Amino acid sequence: MGGGARGALLLLCAVLRMKRLNCGSLGTKRMPLLVMKFGGTSVGDLARIRNAATKVKSEVDRGFDVIVIVSAMSGKTNELVGWVNATSALYDAREYDAVVASGENVTAGLMALALQEMDVPARSWQGWQVPIQTTSAHSAARFVDIPRANIDQKFDQGMKVAVVAGFQGLSPEGRITTLGRGGSDTTAVAFAAAFDAERCDIYTDVDGIYTTDPRITTKARKLDHIAYEEMLELASLGAKVLQTRSVELAMRYKVRLRVLSSFDETDETSGTLVCDEEDIMESRVVSGVAYSRDEAKMTLQAVADRPGIAAAIFGPLAEAGVNVDMIVQNISEDGHTDMTFSCPTDQVLRAETALNAARDRGDIEFQGLVADRDVAKVSVVGIGMRSHAGVAAKMFKVLAAEGINIKVITTSEIKISVLIDRKYMELAVQALHDAFDMDKAA
Amino acid sequence: MGGGARGALLLLCAVLRMKRLNCGSLGTKRMPLLVMKFGGTSVGDLARIRNAATKVKSEVDRGFDVIVIVSAMSGKTNELVGWVNATSALYDAREYDAVVASGENVTAGLMALALQEMDVPARSWQGWQVPIQTTSAHSAARFVDIPRANIDQKFDQGMKVAVVAGFQGLSPEGRITTLGRGGSDTTAVAFAAAFDAERCDIYTDVDGIYTTDPRITTKARKLDHIAYEEMLELASLGAKVLQTRSVELAMRYKVRLRVLSSFDETDETSGTLVCDEEDIMESRVVSGVAYSRDEAKMTLQAVADRPGIAAAIFGPLAEAGVNVDMIVQNISEDGHTDMTFSCPTDQVLRAETALNAARDRGDIEFQGLVADRDVAKVSVVGIGMRSHAGVAAKMFKVLAAEGINIKVITTSEIKISVLIDRKYMELAVQALHDAFDMDKAA
Repeated sequence: MGGGARGALLLLCAVLRMKRLNCGSLGTKRMPLLVMKFGGTSVGDLARIRNAATKVKSEVDRGFDVIVIVSAMSGKTNELVGWVNATSALYDAREYDAVVASGENVTAGLMALALQEMDVPARSWQGWQVPIQTTSAHSAARFVDIPRANIDQKFDQGMKVAVVAGFQGLSPEGRITTLGRGGSDTTAVAFAAAFDAERCDIYTDVDGIYTTDPRITTKARKLDHIAYEEMLELASLGAKVLQTRSVELAMRYKVRLRVLSSFDETDETSGTLVCDEEDIMESRVVSGVAYSRDEAKMTLQAVADRPGIAAAIFGPLAEAGVNVDMIVQNISEDGHTDMTFSCPTDQVLRAETALNAARDRGDIEFQGLVADRDVAKVSVVGIGMRSHAGVAAKMFKVLAAEGINIKVITTSEIKISVLIDRKYMELAVQALHDAFDMDKAA
Repeated sequence: MGGGARGALLLLCAVLRMKRLNCGSLGTKRMPLLVMKFGGTSVGDLARIRNAATKVKSEVDRGFDVIVIVSAMSGKTNELVGWVNATSALYDAREYDAVVASGENVTAGLMALALQEMDVPARSWQGWQVPIQTTSAHSAARFVDIPRANIDQKFDQGMKVAVVAGFQGLSPEGRITTLGRGGSDTTAVAFAAAFDAERCDIYTDVDGIYTTDPRITTKARKLDHIAYEEMLELASLGAKVLQTRSVELAMRYKVRLRVLSSFDETDETSGTLVCDEEDIMESRVVSGVAYSRDEAKMTLQAVADRPGIAAAIFGPLAEAGVNVDMIVQNISEDGHTDMTFSCPTDQVLRAETALNAARDRGDIEFQGLVADRDVAKVSVVGIGMRSHAGVAAKMFKVLAAEGINIKVITTSEIKISVLIDRKYMELAVQALHDAFDMDKAA
């Protein structure tokens, strides 16, 4: 139930859902293909749409056919969502999707026009025109298939750029669906997989993935490469940049993802490439330091220890929708033990309610339930840990030297996470960043 | 080439285009059906959308199944058009349509949600979902077919209201089309025809059709009924209310059109019913007085009179896109005649250029070309004229009594138009309105 396990579970779902994705080529001889995705701020007004179109034209001039995935102009989706909420509190998700998807359609048309104005043969595609086939889970739909035929036909006829509205699809019932948060990134990766793209470039408002949050230490360094697994573990750093689901999908289909800025001059070496670890030449034990402020530590005191007690505790929590992250069980004394776990701060009340209800039903016994909301999680992540011993020991030593007490520890193959007092979080990140020389290139 | 002839020509096109419209019932036993159309100001914000939904619910409560046709929220279409123009001066009309049609899709979703919130089973339909089949003439598309199957199936399953995005359709190539100006009115009439609707109610910001413009005389009276033919002739009064093309289509398919206000309390007797003359019980010779400020009188002096001269003059004008309205040819003297015609003021320059070019080519001979921009057209319209003599004589007498000189006269079966000095226009409208007792109900 650690972050890694959750990630793997989500990934499995993605794989199951994606298994019908048509990844085969139609056999026609064509230009290499690039997918380029522009988020809301990157297409926030007409000048920015033109700026993005210039970047697309550069890739066409380099010899690529391009599929552009666009988000709605920044603010538009929020406006539409606001209208839906104001019209109907318990809205019909099918109508929500129909309204909200219109934002991406506007950007797609305008981007196609901006490209045409630069003499680039382009046309827009709405989800139903491709058609992007999804499940019927409105507002949280999953891809079922992205048939290539319609878009391939236009490429064969001379179109150089297909501008596709992100974040949306078509249900088996013929209704418009949306993919939920970060859906446009996922659309981009799914198109890159379906069309065998050379690469999927995610243009955003930052210039890449950093070793840690530059707001916490100015020594944070932009990474040229990062492995899919590392990117998933570094979710707290990358969440604003890359949606987790899109990284999972990219890993599954070996789509080379590049994160780069739409506001800087960019070339083929800009940004950060998220790729298979085999493609990363530089060898480094630790790639980054992640953190999360949004953690609480909960301790069940003097739990009656018996076989099946863990299931009796964590079953009700899962049913209540509590995302349990770290779990520690103390050594048992006199048939009783303390059980400690962490979860997001805003789920503490839900966890308390679920556990007290379980006690009232007689399913579990405990003496006390203590919630500590003043904790933070700090993690070091690196695929190099697989082959390097001593990373955990070094981490604990660094924190001890700063007088920081470790409350809970969990480890995965490529990550070591500790729960500490929140007031030490910045200090811990800075100390670890220094100790593992992350400011220096490998 | 009079207004009537132009109308008939447009109508013929409409008939040709509409001949495949599926007007037959599927034979299922269902509630009587009403089409209700709400224009941009009627759905201008969320409160107005809710207000419109209340009117729809009233009709459902009265036992109707309803098809609602919606425009974009007022201002939205202009915003989208502005973005297209700013992005690409010579824009691709297919992308223009894809962008601009999104405004209606938003309203359709919000209207469906507002109805659901009132416990009315409703869903939205975008043009391609129906699918509304049109020609490929982007931004000026014509209906080809409106298949009933998809919507009928949902009515059979319990849906009470289908909310359809107006103004749009789907081309044979699978692209989004728009119908051009006033397209949502035309969508409403086409759906009323295709679904054998009891009536097509056009909700707008005025409460009906008046005998003349209330800004010119406070005696202007709202009509309870008006015949299709009268409505077409009264275009100058109705243009802001009902798009000419929608009236032509309604006449062809005998769709009973009602114009009423979305801002007043309304019931089954509100507004003005545009219908077949046989359905109008009240007998009245003259139904309304129309006017047009936007007229110019042009006179070709001393034209060499010979067979074919009219064609030699008006051929080049038609080619130059000049909409010639009234034509008068004086009695020929010494093989020469004066030829006078009227056209919209903003086409005078175009007309002069075309005629001078024809003279330079030797196609026509004339001594002078005089344009008078200070004229206006005033018309009395009424289907009763067909059976009542003396209307023209009475009109001329009324104008003479006011000292108004008539410059040009044209007549059709149900209309008499005169060209007069523009400064007398309001006086003429008021005098004719009084003389024909239009302020009194029939």
